[in-house]
Amino acid sequence: MMIESQANTQSGDAEQARALTLYSYFRSSAAYRVRIALGLKGLPYDYVPIHLLRDGGQQRAPRYVELNPEALVPVLIEDEGDPLTQSLAIVEYLEETRPEPPLLPRAPADRAYVRSIAMQIACDIHPLDNLRVLFYLKKTLGVSDDQKNAWYRHWIETGFAALETRLAREAGPGGRVGRLCFGDTPTIADLCLVPQVFNAERMGVPLDVYPTIQRIAAAAGEIEAFVRAAPGNQVDAE
Amino acid sequence: MMIESQANTQSGDAEQARALTLYSYFRSSAAYRVRIALGLKGLPYDYVPIHLLRDGGQQRAPRYVELNPEALVPVLIEDEGDPLTQSLAIVEYLEETRPEPPLLPRAPADRAYVRSIAMQIACDIHPLDNLRVLFYLKKTLGVSDDQKNAWYRHWIETGFAALETRLAREAGPGGRVGRLCFGDTPTIADLCLVPQVFNAERMGVPLDVYPTIQRIAAAAGEIEAFVRAAPGNQVDAE
Repeated sequence: MMIESQANTQSGDAEQARALTLYSYFRSSAAYRVRIALGLKGLPYDYVPIHLLRDGGQQRAPRYVELNPEALVPVLIEDEGDPLTQSLAIVEYLEETRPEPPLLPRAPADRAYVRSIAMQIACDIHPLDNLRVLFYLKKTLGVSDDQKNAWYRHWIETGFAALETRLAREAGPGGRVGRLCFGDTPTIADLCLVPQVFNAERMGVPLDVYPTIQRIAAAAGEIEAFVRAAPGNQVDAE
Repeated sequence: MMIESQANTQSGDAEQARALTLYSYFRSSAAYRVRIALGLKGLPYDYVPIHLLRDGGQQRAPRYVELNPEALVPVLIEDEGDPLTQSLAIVEYLEETRPEPPLLPRAPADRAYVRSIAMQIACDIHPLDNLRVLFYLKKTLGVSDDQKNAWYRHWIETGFAALETRLAREAGPGGRVGRLCFGDTPTIADLCLVPQVFNAERMGVPLDVYPTIQRIAAAAGEIEAFVRAAPGNQVDAE
């Protein structure tokens, strides 16, 4: 189905007229990031739900694996183009092809700061708590539910403790943090942070020890593109 | 100590005169990626070894955690600037501040392809086999060495199977693969691939089922910047 994305930028740009199709699962953090980016850039898109738990995992269906041999969401397809995979590669692609509004600052050192926050979440927290990893722990290693949940919390807590230190440092006078990770304008750091905080809350990880993370996620969570991208607001939400 | 990097580009650029310091561990894949990038761009740098296993892990020493609250390598510091973290954020920074020779193609769809390969490795393979994860499996979950090694191989094999499919598709006529992941010129895809293949070989993962990966890694491995960045050629090699 077509999602009417409310353009928050000058539209009528020919770039924006190209058809975009997102293969997504409402609860996937990686898909959530791309949904936020599409919303921030005011890009409408077709939403194709891929249920990660139904039918033995719809991401493993041959037709989907043909699109993405990794059998993971999201995939973004533009017109008849190649399927684009890896959420942050997709977001960089959107940034390069639809630069307004920018999701990265201009100065290289600031871009490195923003990307490092995004990648800390995308590389060092999220992959460890991905569904396929939790399945492996349960089914192959036979860990208990308590051990599995402790694992889940451990990687969020380890990652968030380091991230809180970095963000709190930048929240002082002359620092980069504003209402959001970089000033008051959403960047790829925020679109990684919010889904990770959503997961943490869902797993009951206490967040009051990460006040800067909590404050930024709350501020971002009020922005319309973030609200529309939230798992509960997707057509495949349960 | 100072590493004399052989400039393979026009040097004498003022950008290149800035002092770079890399905190590295010879066997770290993430540090290895950055070493390759520095070499490809002909940038000399100071190498500060951080031994991940000695002294209870030198990356956990307060002075290092001050640089990188994540307590991971690598960190790159330029002059008196902020410590830069996350290998791919560092490489993008080098690409933006020292564009020659480019490590990304020009067209957005090609850049997305290259970045997606890099990120598939950096997000979906490498973090699962990181030292801290293996420690957790051993110490907290009490898995056996066999189970730990099977875990290690599982994530490489899962990732490489998908990657082989993607690269083999692109290796046909009109595809993007040449001697390397994108044509014959090294990109950030190759600088992620080679360290991951190094790890796989070290763990005895059979690679002949991934002929395209194997062929590209072998071709890249002959390029001087890759040779000089190899773990065995670092001052802290054991």
